[in-house]
Amino acid sequence: MADVSSNPNSASDTLTLDGIRDSLIRQENSIVYSLIERARFPLNRQIYLQNNASIPGFSGSLVEFIVRETEAIQAKAGRYENPEENPFFPESLPLPLVLNPHKYPKDLHPSGASINMNKAIWEFYFNKFLPLLVADGDDGNYAATAASDLACLQTLSRRIHCGKYVAEVKFRDAPKEYETPIRSKERDTLMKLLTFEAVEEMVKKRVERKAMVFGQEVTLNNTNEGGKHSIDPSLASRLYSEWVMPLTKEVEVEYLLCRLE
Amino acid sequence: MADVSSNPNSASDTLTLDGIRDSLIRQENSIVYSLIERARFPLNRQIYLQNNASIPGFSGSLVEFIVRETEAIQAKAGRYENPEENPFFPESLPLPLVLNPHKYPKDLHPSGASINMNKAIWEFYFNKFLPLLVADGDDGNYAATAASDLACLQTLSRRIHCGKYVAEVKFRDAPKEYETPIRSKERDTLMKLLTFEAVEEMVKKRVERKAMVFGQEVTLNNTNEGGKHSIDPSLASRLYSEWVMPLTKEVEVEYLLCRLE
Repeated sequence: MADVSSNPNSASDTLTLDGIRDSLIRQENSIVYSLIERARFPLNRQIYLQNNASIPGFSGSLVEFIVRETEAIQAKAGRYENPEENPFFPESLPLPLVLNPHKYPKDLHPSGASINMNKAIWEFYFNKFLPLLVADGDDGNYAATAASDLACLQTLSRRIHCGKYVAEVKFRDAPKEYETPIRSKERDTLMKLLTFEAVEEMVKKRVERKAMVFGQEVTLNNTNEGGKHSIDPSLASRLYSEWVMPLTKEVEVEYLLCRLE
Repeated sequence: MADVSSNPNSASDTLTLDGIRDSLIRQENSIVYSLIERARFPLNRQIYLQNNASIPGFSGSLVEFIVRETEAIQAKAGRYENPEENPFFPESLPLPLVLNPHKYPKDLHPSGASINMNKAIWEFYFNKFLPLLVADGDDGNYAATAASDLACLQTLSRRIHCGKYVAEVKFRDAPKEYETPIRSKERDTLMKLLTFEAVEEMVKKRVERKAMVFGQEVTLNNTNEGGKHSIDPSLASRLYSEWVMPLTKEVEVEYLLCRLE
């Protein structure tokens, strides 16, 4: 049974650093599951080629088509009313059609709320990370593969954009500490204020461990963490150290830079 | 790295009972991950109510809207060209637009290939199983919740329809054994021929164990299988015993009944 009173899926439910950390920790699981699911399929290069589908009025790749169209459907169902969700194709998204939409708390500073780092996420995910995650090859499951990519992108995007909440809470806890570097636009100082290497090391290790535990081959009687894994556990750690954590901090810095506007 | 030479995601790649069993075992993981992901959200009852969205020309529930529209997009990307995939809304699905579609082997008997048990899957999933899986409540994440439901439905549907491959292989291995009960339409005899209680018990236990392992709280140093879980592990076992395995066998019986046409 999920415990709804403290929804671990929401960073905004309890705007405390502990609450946000719990949500980030829970999101690690979603990220690991989504990577494992994507790795069931080989690369399926076809879906990343431009103009490989005869879609009237559309000239991108198949994965772009699937992400764009699926986002449009989910926008109608109100996905992007949630300030934790950011679309990859924000241009001309349809309006929500739900009759009784949820009222989300407006915890974020308006200028920072609209930060969208999804172009960078798209870039690293497809061009750098994916070739490390999956085997080369083609098994024809293009739609399922693209849907898996979308799941990975969405969980990664949600995690990285939680940086807005992290920054907001940190700012509220010590506004004076941040004011000077914000006013003088000292990115490096802000980045230093936001960096805790010991914590980052811990996160990397925990994510690697999750990939080991969740990706192990489970038989009836044994756990087999040392055996074969669905994905290379060290790759989950690398994903965090090279992309997820740096981009989260970039979101935090960008957010702080407009926090006093 | 995924091993593509023996694609564990495909029952049809190697049409042997061992190959299909490997695929079914792998699909248990996908099912467990998808249930864990759905259980992050409360019930969000709004998405199951009829006419709760102002969608022109559409009068169903929001979840029906999301499933139907997402299936249409995935159909354009060729999802249902794969004989292992069965849509929930097969009426008026758009044609695939991929320029170089994959050629899937035609291992199934044509009459049996079109069996679609998704109405029964939809029914048990929403009306019987989901209320056991999730807490009551509403957190507004309607689109994400409906997308999670779709992921659950798709993994369950794929697993259950693999019964077609199980039946095909069993028939090929012993056509004489099946011929008489097929010709005389003896469902009960066929069901008995297809039932191996010891195997079913093993599957139930393994699925429960997977829910325990994949749904545990992972900390830096400890595994914690006995602790709190994302979903009740016994519920995964119950899902299999009450719905997944009986419906798989129903697919097998239906398939065999038209195997000699």
